[in-house]
Amino acid sequence: MIAPLYLEDLRVGDRFSSEEHALDEAQIKAFAAQFDPQPFHLDNEAAKDSIFQGLAASGWHTASITMKLMVTSGLRIAGGMVGAGGEVQWPRPARATDVLHVEMEVLEVRPSSSRPDRGMAIVRSETKNQHGDVLQVLTSKMVVWRRT
Amino acid sequence: MIAPLYLEDLRVGDRFSSEEHALDEAQIKAFAAQFDPQPFHLDNEAAKDSIFQGLAASGWHTASITMKLMVTSGLRIAGGMVGAGGEVQWPRPARATDVLHVEMEVLEVRPSSSRPDRGMAIVRSETKNQHGDVLQVLTSKMVVWRRT
Repeated sequence: MIAPLYLEDLRVGDRFSSEEHALDEAQIKAFAAQFDPQPFHLDNEAAKDSIFQGLAASGWHTASITMKLMVTSGLRIAGGMVGAGGEVQWPRPARATDVLHVEMEVLEVRPSSSRPDRGMAIVRSETKNQHGDVLQVLTSKMVVWRRT
Repeated sequence: MIAPLYLEDLRVGDRFSSEEHALDEAQIKAFAAQFDPQPFHLDNEAAKDSIFQGLAASGWHTASITMKLMVTSGLRIAGGMVGAGGEVQWPRPARATDVLHVEMEVLEVRPSSSRPDRGMAIVRSETKNQHGDVLQVLTSKMVVWRRT
């Protein structure tokens, strides 16, 4: 059990790594049916002729699994992980046989000038599969509390 | 039924509006249990004392519902809606009583210089609740096919 981290505990260049999450066809199709109902996320045959040339996870599914991995392992922020926003890129889609993990790096740590109880951390997260392929790059701005 | 759109059909300033999606507690907690298991997304009591001061949907849940609304209504891109990435902000969280819809605007349309069959559109999407509060602003880069 790692103690949860406050703003004072974070340093630029700190790195964290998450546990793994194994995808499969059922997960890809269930997420897609609910949130991204397009043939290349729902149907193996239709996906073959698409831009993805085979069944592909929705980018929002990859992003959601990334959040799960960051929350349950990796970076434990005191009081919870709250993002104000960020930038996301999907260089290639996640596939049904992929086992995902997330590698995080702290890019910036900044106390708030108006609110003495908190600050902002900018964290870059790469979501990779078991071959080391980068499936998602997320740069997120997170609210982080200061020690009282 | 609106005909699906190709790159040539899109103009800077074009606007689209989606149908509505009604959130509720069960959806918020089910998404959180799977993808963002933090007390303020899972438990009404714990959420009261959190930064959100009440149960709040995960930002990734709001993003996923936004994608669903964009795919099923709003902007119909020929061959499907494929995002290469984008920038997302969550000015305030979605709540259990919120009814969401998405307002889209085309910011940029650009044919690919290397691939004559496609181009890129940059689309800004605001996800609002029934009171007009902006819950998410997403600026996404989408792959859009050209007419052959």
